[in-house]
Amino acid sequence: MIQITLIQIDNYGPWTVTPKPRREADLQVLQSRLYADLESLFSSKGGLVFFSRFDNLIAITNGVTLEDHKQIQNSIKNRYPLTISFGIAAGETSLEAQYKASHVLQGSGSSRSEVRREIIAVDSFAQSGEKVKIAHIDINGVTKGFTDSKPAYENYVMVNEVMVELMKGLKEKNALLFFIGGDNFMSPCNGLKDEELNQVFDEIYQNLGISLKAGIGIAENADVASQLADLSLEKIRGKEIEGCICILENKY
Amino acid sequence: MIQITLIQIDNYGPWTVTPKPRREADLQVLQSRLYADLESLFSSKGGLVFFSRFDNLIAITNGVTLEDHKQIQNSIKNRYPLTISFGIAAGETSLEAQYKASHVLQGSGSSRSEVRREIIAVDSFAQSGEKVKIAHIDINGVTKGFTDSKPAYENYVMVNEVMVELMKGLKEKNALLFFIGGDNFMSPCNGLKDEELNQVFDEIYQNLGISLKAGIGIAENADVASQLADLSLEKIRGKEIEGCICILENKY
Amino acid sequence: MIQITLIQIDNYGPWTVTPKPRREADLQVLQSRLYADLESLFSSKGGLVFFSRFDNLIAITNGVTLEDHKQIQNSIKNRYPLTISFGIAAGETSLEAQYKASHVLQGSGSSRSEVRREIIAVDSFAQSGEKVKIAHIDINGVTKGFTDSKPAYENYVMVNEVMVELMKGLKEKNALLFFIGGDNFMSPCNGLKDEELNQVFDEIYQNLGISLKAGIGIAENADVASQLADLSLEKIRGKEIEGCICILENKY
Amino acid sequence: MIQITLIQIDNYGPWTVTPKPRREADLQVLQSRLYADLESLFSSKGGLVFFSRFDNLIAITNGVTLEDHKQIQNSIKNRYPLTISFGIAAGETSLEAQYKASHVLQGSGSSRSEVRREIIAVDSFAQSGEKVKIAHIDINGVTKGFTDSKPAYENYVMVNEVMVELMKGLKEKNALLFFIGGDNFMSPCNGLKDEELNQVFDEIYQNLGISLKAGIGIAENADVASQLADLSLEKIRGKEIEGCICILENKY
Repeated sequence: MIQITLIQIDNYGPWTVTPKPRREADLQVLQSRLYADLESLFSSKGGLVFFSRFDNLIAITNGVTLEDHKQIQNSIKNRYPLTISFGIAAGETSLEAQYKASHVLQGSGSSRSEVRREIIAVDSFAQSGEKVKIAHIDINGVTKGFTDSKPAYENYVMVNEVMVELMKGLKEKNALLFFIGGDNFMSPCNGLKDEELNQVFDEIYQNLGISLKAGIGIAENADVASQLADLSLEKIRGKEIEGCICILENKY
Repeated sequence: MIQITLIQIDNYGPWTVTPKPRREADLQVLQSRLYADLESLFSSKGGLVFFSRFDNLIAITNGVTLEDHKQIQNSIKNRYPLTISFGIAAGETSLEAQYKASHVLQGSGSSRSEVRREIIAVDSFAQSGEKVKIAHIDINGVTKGFTDSKPAYENYVMVNEVMVELMKGLKEKNALLFFIGGDNFMSPCNGLKDEELNQVFDEIYQNLGISLKAGIGIAENADVASQLADLSLEKIRGKEIEGCICILENKY
Repeated sequence: MIQITLIQIDNYGPWTVTPKPRREADLQVLQSRLYADLESLFSSKGGLVFFSRFDNLIAITNGVTLEDHKQIQNSIKNRYPLTISFGIAAGETSLEAQYKASHVLQGSGSSRSEVRREIIAVDSFAQSGEKVKIAHIDINGVTKGFTDSKPAYENYVMVNEVMVELMKGLKEKNALLFFIGGDNFMSPCNGLKDEELNQVFDEIYQNLGISLKAGIGIAENADVASQLADLSLEKIRGKEIEGCICILENKY
Repeated sequence: MIQITLIQIDNYGPWTVTPKPRREADLQVLQSRLYADLESLFSSKGGLVFFSRFDNLIAITNGVTLEDHKQIQNSIKNRYPLTISFGIAAGETSLEAQYKASHVLQGSGSSRSEVRREIIAVDSFAQSGEKVKIAHIDINGVTKGFTDSKPAYENYVMVNEVMVELMKGLKEKNALLFFIGGDNFMSPCNGLKDEELNQVFDEIYQNLGISLKAGIGIAENADVASQLADLSLEKIRGKEIEGCICILENKY
């Protein structure tokens, strides 16, 4: 079971334009720092946060307790001009877990309610011993073929096209997909089979002419699983492994 | 003429995996803080930065001088374990400007070179008095129709699909497009005509069933233009204006 | 036993002037952010950090393990252009613990060595169940008597004079003292008796005409002890308690 | 004339304990980040901020306009759970300027008022062409004599004793003094003569046995003056200059 926390800024949209639109640069600074803080706070408990839409962030939180969530919620209130709410759920797949996390939080009121503040809506927690599976995916040959030779924006568009195709392909297999910078993506993918991932990669190669590889990690929490995924990816890059998928599992 | 600065982290890819892969959460914190700092530093000179791929960022920098660029480059070196290089160019359109900015920076060496550090490669600067045009685009009815009713991840996928369609449509009209959080996008769009933007919106409505609106600002720099764009968007939201496009220009 | 970690930036002095003096504002930003990060990282493990001299910081770290120290050291390296070393020791009093922590770190090389990097020098760790005692001290009537009526700098000098007197008085009783902003101080003070603290306060009143109060907390770690100290101070402020000292202890 | 801005967090004390005392670590993170942001924002306009008491900060702001102050005030409101007010004044000496800046701000209401928010109280601005004089002072032989050989806390106490003596001595000469980390201090010191500074140093040597040196910079704003002060100090450290005081002036 993978545990997902949906993090939602309370009543953010109205705040950004009250009493008049706030300066765009300030909002960008605010959002990226809030994400950095959430990442720092959750990861020190073993979690991992994806910025997603910045006002609705998705985190893998196996091992992060209700008490931890309360303290993080409190720290954010003490540092920012706004507050956050959480929906927490465990599922067999990340798609299922985020679905339940969204549902339980939506049940507590609108994201734009003036009264819904600092909710922690719990569907379920993962149990100790249950594992997280994460794939770190990147694009082959991106520095030579793109960054050093094509205009920056065209590479950016290409990366986004690949992202959307990955999102669509992986969603059919019940896995989520997030952009993490450069030409890198992370997919919380409990239950995903190697042949399913290969199939998604094949379709993207046929549609876009882009080839991908994936290092996969399995561990007790997202922090360790993502580290193993990075090590797996290095094995492929270093040609220690044939093919485009490598898996490492933390058995302890 | 719009002035674009391509910001590139020097030799970032190798750094992230040397001597072994660095912790993913630390990299996420690093990237988002670097972006926040660049946004804060450039915007205090009138610029505006988009995070793009985080290791290759694109900024609108009309009014930001060579001296300002040097000081920002220096401040980043003094605060971070890495350095950045710049390519600077002005163009009739944002697509042209980023093309020239990319080209001039690529001419100074590879993004993964161990010796290319802290370059400022200049193609051209915009002149005083030249204007920046920015469109702030958002999705109609996203809170009711999506955030409060559908799973968080499905909304995130939808926003990304809209983004890629906007990117493709606007690129044909020589405009760039960036995601800025929530259901919001910004497009530096010098030279873009209203009917061209309407046409892009129509196609997206036909393909995805999603309707969009745009507040546009025109001013001497990106900081002011983006503020005007936000005010324009509020006029549409408040139904002070019919249609889905509103323009405000700073004539002084 | 109280556990103290001495945090030292490696070879910081030379770095600040190499190849030429770095911009003062950048150094101030760097130092205060480094402190904020250390505070955030240590406190999520139950610790509490005082900025002290900014290049040599002192933390109370009961409950923070060797593994935690390694991860924090690593996160700092991944985010900053410099690295840090630690000396760790437990003692009956905070003065003793910092003495041993300093000694063990100094034994591993100079703070200005070019080769001494990322040391973790361990004298001893506190055991589970051992308690931390912290006093939160503030100045009576500072808003009316000083902040709202006297020049800002004169108040600042007064606060510093009180600080140095507190430092001297408490050091004789084997307790440390740190400024934490406003008119507030914190003293890790295992072993300090109420009458000793009263005696220090009396001397300061006689020398400087300034009267002080202290909320004290005792708990399994500094995070909880400081919270109890704050609650104790509120009891005095709210006149729930007579006198200028109040103690709360976490018995669980 | 030197221009000083007193920066005051609005109603901060009550906020820190409402509805109950906020977590000490969160407050420390908040204060140090607020300082880092103020430093970054003011310095990009040529100013320099000293953290002072963290809730009352003193900045040298020659060249920072009323409009700049408004934008900084606004950016802080957009990023933090609290707001700040300013008192601005120019004076022949820094002591005089801070006196007038304090007075004009105090005239607008209490620092703990629930209604006084985001004030900009102006006594006077410095004129273009007027200079700032800053001394960067440090302690001779601190690494060998203290950091590497004595306990960290004893060094910290020593630095604070030196600071208070410097504060007292310099105040009689109408100059302010701030700690900036390590064994370093900065003194905005318009009007201070070399022999006066020498006299202060002599007294401290006689009282505490500590010898000091000062690099001094004179320039159109604090950012440049502090850079010159740093270069002056390097000249003394490098023995390019005899004695313990060196002055560099930006004549352009």
